[in-house]
Amino acid sequence: MALRAALRSRSGLSGLLSQRSSCSSDIRMCVSPLLVPQQRNYSTPPKIRVEFDQSTGVAVMHMQSPPVNSLSLDFLTELCISVEKLEMDKSCRGLIITSAQPKVFSAGLDITEMYGKSPEHCGAFWRSVQEMWLKLYGSNMVTVAAINGSSPAGGCLMAMTCDYRIMADNPRYNIGLNETQLGIVAPFWFMDTMKNTVGQRTTEMALQLGLLYKPADALKIGLVDQLEPEDQVIAVATQTISRWLAIPDHARQITKSMMRKKTIDKLTSNRESDIQFFVNFITKDSIQKSLGGYMEMLKKRRA
Amino acid sequence: MALRAALRSRSGLSGLLSQRSSCSSDIRMCVSPLLVPQQRNYSTPPKIRVEFDQSTGVAVMHMQSPPVNSLSLDFLTELCISVEKLEMDKSCRGLIITSAQPKVFSAGLDITEMYGKSPEHCGAFWRSVQEMWLKLYGSNMVTVAAINGSSPAGGCLMAMTCDYRIMADNPRYNIGLNETQLGIVAPFWFMDTMKNTVGQRTTEMALQLGLLYKPADALKIGLVDQLEPEDQVIAVATQTISRWLAIPDHARQITKSMMRKKTIDKLTSNRESDIQFFVNFITKDSIQKSLGGYMEMLKKRRA
Amino acid sequence: MALRAALRSRSGLSGLLSQRSSCSSDIRMCVSPLLVPQQRNYSTPPKIRVEFDQSTGVAVMHMQSPPVNSLSLDFLTELCISVEKLEMDKSCRGLIITSAQPKVFSAGLDITEMYGKSPEHCGAFWRSVQEMWLKLYGSNMVTVAAINGSSPAGGCLMAMTCDYRIMADNPRYNIGLNETQLGIVAPFWFMDTMKNTVGQRTTEMALQLGLLYKPADALKIGLVDQLEPEDQVIAVATQTISRWLAIPDHARQITKSMMRKKTIDKLTSNRESDIQFFVNFITKDSIQKSLGGYMEMLKKRRA
Repeated sequence: MALRAALRSRSGLSGLLSQRSSCSSDIRMCVSPLLVPQQRNYSTPPKIRVEFDQSTGVAVMHMQSPPVNSLSLDFLTELCISVEKLEMDKSCRGLIITSAQPKVFSAGLDITEMYGKSPEHCGAFWRSVQEMWLKLYGSNMVTVAAINGSSPAGGCLMAMTCDYRIMADNPRYNIGLNETQLGIVAPFWFMDTMKNTVGQRTTEMALQLGLLYKPADALKIGLVDQLEPEDQVIAVATQTISRWLAIPDHARQITKSMMRKKTIDKLTSNRESDIQFFVNFITKDSIQKSLGGYMEMLKKRRA
Repeated sequence: MALRAALRSRSGLSGLLSQRSSCSSDIRMCVSPLLVPQQRNYSTPPKIRVEFDQSTGVAVMHMQSPPVNSLSLDFLTELCISVEKLEMDKSCRGLIITSAQPKVFSAGLDITEMYGKSPEHCGAFWRSVQEMWLKLYGSNMVTVAAINGSSPAGGCLMAMTCDYRIMADNPRYNIGLNETQLGIVAPFWFMDTMKNTVGQRTTEMALQLGLLYKPADALKIGLVDQLEPEDQVIAVATQTISRWLAIPDHARQITKSMMRKKTIDKLTSNRESDIQFFVNFITKDSIQKSLGGYMEMLKKRRA
Repeated sequence: MALRAALRSRSGLSGLLSQRSSCSSDIRMCVSPLLVPQQRNYSTPPKIRVEFDQSTGVAVMHMQSPPVNSLSLDFLTELCISVEKLEMDKSCRGLIITSAQPKVFSAGLDITEMYGKSPEHCGAFWRSVQEMWLKLYGSNMVTVAAINGSSPAGGCLMAMTCDYRIMADNPRYNIGLNETQLGIVAPFWFMDTMKNTVGQRTTEMALQLGLLYKPADALKIGLVDQLEPEDQVIAVATQTISRWLAIPDHARQITKSMMRKKTIDKLTSNRESDIQFFVNFITKDSIQKSLGGYMEMLKKRRA
């Protein structure tokens, strides 16, 4: 049943990325006197905007990299720095991750970082993807994903690192690890994260078929925990995180760490070989050709 | 959905332990000519009453340690001796565990065994908790929990060691590993037992939040297998166990042992370090202070 | 709930095997000009009939060993050779496994191969069971089980090796690993395969009780993925497999292999000891006596 529903709703990355032209900037500013935006020193517009409410100890991280919050090397570097700052700030106990772009949470890994690039560049890029996952999956903060748009591939991975996932109840959105649809393979730690979320069997089928689930189907298999009307997602995330923060930090953090340690250790102790594997795979002629064809198709759609 | 329902129903240990004053002695005696109560030689009233029906090969273990069947060192020692006797009696093939106290199955670990006690005492206590788990989770008998009251923390652990769980369908009762709510952490083998019962994702959320589930929610996530009217729980447990006993013992026992071996071996081979870890943790000033504050609160409620 | 439903529907192997007399030969031939039956050189009638449609890249393997597709040494040898041929044929990308016998998919391991046979014979037989599992669970092809009849024990194992399971929606059929009902034990790789399909808790209960599930219950626990009217099972399997084949082979195959590698490696590196364990177990007097009694009972039923 879930398979058939998911197959019907398969719109894929292509449908998503082609929305580039329709992207607008409806970022709602909601800075209150209590919110202390962190200082930044980038020459380009920041791709991440963090609002930290000292009265609650909760930071909201708005991803604002037009058009679709693609996970580029720059974006990931900025995101990791932001998370690390919050992690070291003892007054920050919770983190909500959401998107400031319309219709999309994050479209996943930026293909331009892997197409026609040197092995060195691909390796540095992959290290930053690993770093994002390690920082978020191993965070001491309570993390909640406020998934207010589609969230394929790396976007889904990012959402799965969180302690809780609330998704906008909009049937046009979808979420999943759809790598095989592009002819590539989700690495073992993507797999492990999904297995920890929805179990072995659902992961096996979802990954082989590169399934993207509509919100209602994602809820059914446990890929997200709760659906809310789109304009309520962040508000509900804020209420939810306050319940998690009622638990003593120390006990909650040790518990989280014990539950995830094995999965995290597996990447930590295989980090270099995982980079090597990715670089060898992605720089293959056949894979480059496939990525090139895919980007060409996207360009034509946009024209 | 499950989270929100569970959060609504969160009454916690405090609500439970404060019922001490209302505890009465409504233990229903149902000894038939076939039942052979085991001989006992304790100077204090026995905390465990075992009825063994030789005609069926099924023993019923009534926990009767007022007010709330707290797992004290004495209680656990008595329980382990009882289980061991039954295990060695080849005519005993099935065990039903239930409570003779009103409203509670077991309130879990006895805090007074960990507060203001010597490291030696804490270590001996912890060893007895391990022993209870090893004996029950590795039992060759068919074990069924007839959960006729609330079952937080160690009470939930005990229920989870069984092959099958039937809970009273009373929305005032709850079950779960709520350790984090008290600022402490469920050890790895509590975690493993819960993962084996409800899966990784549900365990991760339940343990971080210290969730206590109402019977209907516990059924939904698979923490219990069946709900029955309160006065039917033991009768249904008796019917259920007879179906399990229709399977040839030898094949069933090997199957059970193969399914649980890895989890049991993990504690067996880390038993001393687990005790050391517990003693170091529980004797910390901050944890002792937290336990003291909790006990003070309970005293005030009872007054 | 699931337990009670499954217990109600427990008809067991005996009911199944006793249908031998009613078996007819309603094998529907549906060879089209595109179908190229593979050449065979057996003196006895082939137990496996393969139809390969070059236009779709999909082979359909009809098991046709009267009366109930018991997994004998000959049957398994023929099946393994067929799978290997298809695996090496690069034009074959998908495999549907189904039964040409009425009312049964496969009744599982052939007891006559284990009763009154030499240790050498038992060992050779067990090796062929392992080989079947290794070939199917590790297949690079998309594999779909079109389960058009009952599927106990080894029949269930075979179905579980597939990527997707469609079962006839006939409440007279059942599926499950019911070994304990016969006094024997499903080996660790049967267990692992079931755990990968329905999770630890369901497997633990199903295997201890030797549960056979009706189609509706099998769907509920995830043992099968979809139910269809009996005469639609193969047609729907054909539609389903075409969706799986829309995914680039290379990415799908690596994904499948990564998801199953650990489970497969466990048998591969313990193959000889697993055979030794089986031979020691099955040649025991008590087990032989139990198998003998079971076969005697079947004979009487048929008379």
